[in-house]
Amino acid sequence: MNKIRAVVFDAYGTLFDVYSATARAEQLFPGKGEALALLWRERQIDYTRLRSLAAPDGARYKPFWDITIDALRYAAERLELKLDDAGQAQLLKEYACLSAFPENLAALKRLRRANLPLGILSNGNPEMLDIAVKSAGMHGLFDHVLSVDTVKQYKTAPAAYALGPKAFDLPAGEILFVSSNCWDACGATWFGYTTYWINRAGHPAERLDVAPTGTGHDMNDLLAFVAASGAAL
Amino acid sequence: MNKIRAVVFDAYGTLFDVYSATARAEQLFPGKGEALALLWRERQIDYTRLRSLAAPDGARYKPFWDITIDALRYAAERLELKLDDAGQAQLLKEYACLSAFPENLAALKRLRRANLPLGILSNGNPEMLDIAVKSAGMHGLFDHVLSVDTVKQYKTAPAAYALGPKAFDLPAGEILFVSSNCWDACGATWFGYTTYWINRAGHPAERLDVAPTGTGHDMNDLLAFVAASGAAL
Repeated sequence: MNKIRAVVFDAYGTLFDVYSATARAEQLFPGKGEALALLWRERQIDYTRLRSLAAPDGARYKPFWDITIDALRYAAERLELKLDDAGQAQLLKEYACLSAFPENLAALKRLRRANLPLGILSNGNPEMLDIAVKSAGMHGLFDHVLSVDTVKQYKTAPAAYALGPKAFDLPAGEILFVSSNCWDACGATWFGYTTYWINRAGHPAERLDVAPTGTGHDMNDLLAFVAASGAAL
Repeated sequence: MNKIRAVVFDAYGTLFDVYSATARAEQLFPGKGEALALLWRERQIDYTRLRSLAAPDGARYKPFWDITIDALRYAAERLELKLDDAGQAQLLKEYACLSAFPENLAALKRLRRANLPLGILSNGNPEMLDIAVKSAGMHGLFDHVLSVDTVKQYKTAPAAYALGPKAFDLPAGEILFVSSNCWDACGATWFGYTTYWINRAGHPAERLDVAPTGTGHDMNDLLAFVAASGAAL
């Protein structure tokens, strides 16, 4: 394995726990909140891929926050839920101000103490990433907060993953890319990163003929992986 | 609206009814067949997009039939269903030999009698399209059976949609592209086709800031749309 010289994280679902949005959805639509949250997330990702695949030049690009709203409205309509402006505002507010997973802050601080440069590489647009980083108490922990908005291509486009090596001035293989989304860890592996899949939900690996370099259950497992790679933590 | 000089159809879900695969899944796994079929279909499409988006040069391309198997195995594993070789073979056989939707054959023949050139433009690889066309009784109805396999880019990549205008030697706007998948009709609209969404399930339109030229419930509605465009049916 390459020596790891920087660690770059996916944001939503990896650093930020999106569960609070599900909880709010359940509050608004008892018995249907989980279905709404699932379809919302599914369409959010679908729309990023459809837009980027349709236009490699970014002509169909729309910022992630706007896509998040589109996806929420579609999901509510599809499930025949009456989502009024107030309900929509509540759900979007939850999504804007997420919490960190419990172990994340301590783990990030430990990586920083080891002088490993840290970053975020996310589909989120800069405005929403800025709010999320602050509301999760992670302000000042990252050397680079990278948004695909710069290149107007969503993951798994190579232009999106290329932001990491460029910002850190390192070969992709010397950067550890961390995601809770197996498809994202796979996409980054294809690109050339050393990768780690935080499999919080205990799901099977995606069948994409590629495997993340490492896999574990949470950020503490990630720390062990980084230490095993030779970093002094 | 442009005068329509040819009609090109998506295959799976549009011409071919994939329900029989769901029915077989329900037979194999009572109470869980629908969930299996849904996740199977979801991952099948996800994998096409992830691979094409990750490599515009086709380097991550894998034929649709192989992706269909990958997706089925993932879905069974994720749902913790014991899918043995015999069960997998049964499901794949259903998927290989699908039926046409009831009204489709008569509708296709009526379009042909009107001397409209017809085609298929599908994510499916040529071998699976060939079997599907024959088993649905549609042999000889199409002037062109186009597979993205030629360009190794799945929809919604422009290279995939470009196969239609090239084969028919017509501008995209003079070709009617028909799909039961709203996202596919939207992708084709972005590309420049005149489009029709057969909304069999009565779903809301995808929120992609683009609308198919026409929408209806089945192939008979499509015939009315084609007639209204000026074709003598």
